Amino acid sequence: MRNFLITITYDGSCFHGWQIQKNALTVQEVFQDALFKVISERPDIKACSRTDSGVHANMFCLSMKTEHKIPPERLKGALNRFLPQSVAVLDCKEVPLDFHARYDCKGKRYVYKIWNNPVRNPFLRDYALHYRWKIDEELLNKSAQDFVGKHDFTSFCTDDGREMDNMERTITHFSVKRDGDMVMMTVEADGFLYNMVRIMVGTLLKIQQGKIPADGIPDLFAQKSRNHKGITAPPQGLYLQQVNY
Amino acid sequence: MRNFLITITYDGSCFHGWQIQKNALTVQEVFQDALFKVISERPDIKACSRTDSGVHANMFCLSMKTEHKIPPERLKGALNRFLPQSVAVLDCKEVPLDFHARYDCKGKRYVYKIWNNPVRNPFLRDYALHYRWKIDEELLNKSAQDFVGKHDFTSFCTDDGREMDNMERTITHFSVKRDGDMVMMTVEADGFLYNMVRIMVGTLLKIQQGKIPADGIPDLFAQKSRNHKGITAPPQGLYLQQVNY
Repeated sequence: MRNFLITITYDGSCFHGWQIQKNALTVQEVFQDALFKVISERPDIKACSRTDSGVHANMFCLSMKTEHKIPPERLKGALNRFLPQSVAVLDCKEVPLDFHARYDCKGKRYVYKIWNNPVRNPFLRDYALHYRWKIDEELLNKSAQDFVGKHDFTSFCTDDGREMDNMERTITHFSVKRDGDMVMMTVEADGFLYNMVRIMVGTLLKIQQGKIPADGIPDLFAQKSRNHKGITAPPQGLYLQQVNY
Repeated sequence: MRNFLITITYDGSCFHGWQIQKNALTVQEVFQDALFKVISERPDIKACSRTDSGVHANMFCLSMKTEHKIPPERLKGALNRFLPQSVAVLDCKEVPLDFHARYDCKGKRYVYKIWNNPVRNPFLRDYALHYRWKIDEELLNKSAQDFVGKHDFTSFCTDDGREMDNMERTITHFSVKRDGDMVMMTVEADGFLYNMVRIMVGTLLKIQQGKIPADGIPDLFAQKSRNHKGITAPPQGLYLQQVNY
């Protein structure tokens, strides 16, 4: 038996997220179909995480076991031939048999992109949030530092029906930077709860609008409530940027 | 009567080019439809040029005459509300009555983008040419300087059925530069013949492949023949970048 770690990238606007589902095209489905064409097997696939419909991945990792003898470089090339243009395999390598793409993940980095100009950018309609009004990136960067550290993120996630016994996560980095008309929010943590990045981004935009005070994040942590309707930023700005093992 | 100069940008992957045609969606059609919703008129529209199916515009200019009294800023806002997300109006202003978006154009700049990596970029499938093999941008930049100056471009255009009495154009700038895995070819001229940029880009790629010698461009000019089958680079890498008046 061999274990492979495969790194892919995909344009989330073409898919209803990573995880396979009935009646909707997902990245997992097209990946498994391409894999079947190469190795004539449908091994169980362990993914580093799930992504929502419309969320992108510059880097997404998965592991899978097979007895097939294909060399990693040939597997990479063959998968890229059978995958649609909206997905690409960046790397394939053999890893120890006990490696698991989710359990062995030490941390991840997400980027959220905001096109900050009164006029929309036609090229970014599926690749960034369009926000017409002024964003003070220095103000938001300062507020965002209150997210950094170990916290119970109950106030900053959506109930997805999964039982969670531990709502604590540790954010190691949160920055808000501007490059021309593009505002980029970058978050690194040991793990993320459901919708956590999009709710933190939405919270910062509410701070920008004066609907939440600039120093209001500690209060929201203390509330431990999911009473944040309408605060989740839309998916098209979000990119899974890096996965650390 | 008033004359408007309107600057737009559009994602060409959503359209069969600029110019209106039966049975295919074009930028001109969606623009005229949005305009009709705003001013209840269908004025004759003069465009700076035509773009082919799949070709993008970061800047595209048109002029049109109307007796409507709408202020330019309101026209811009209203058009942006009615246009699809794949088109945006960047600027609207009043110009002298004798201004014509095509005849008064002094020059244009195009950019051609090439994703130069063995693995495709899923985000650029409609926004750059994917070229897997090594590109020596310094070699190509040197060869490209033979395009600069006043030449008869018969060898570097496609016959589109229009009578052309003058095949001379003056290229004022041609550069080939690399930014990481992206190679950008930038061309400025007083005017362009049909497919001229895409054929020049295709010629440079043939030089990269050794199928045309690095100093072969003057010979091609001298041939004055359109015997260049398969040399036209595909549309998705091409952007109309700037229009000068």
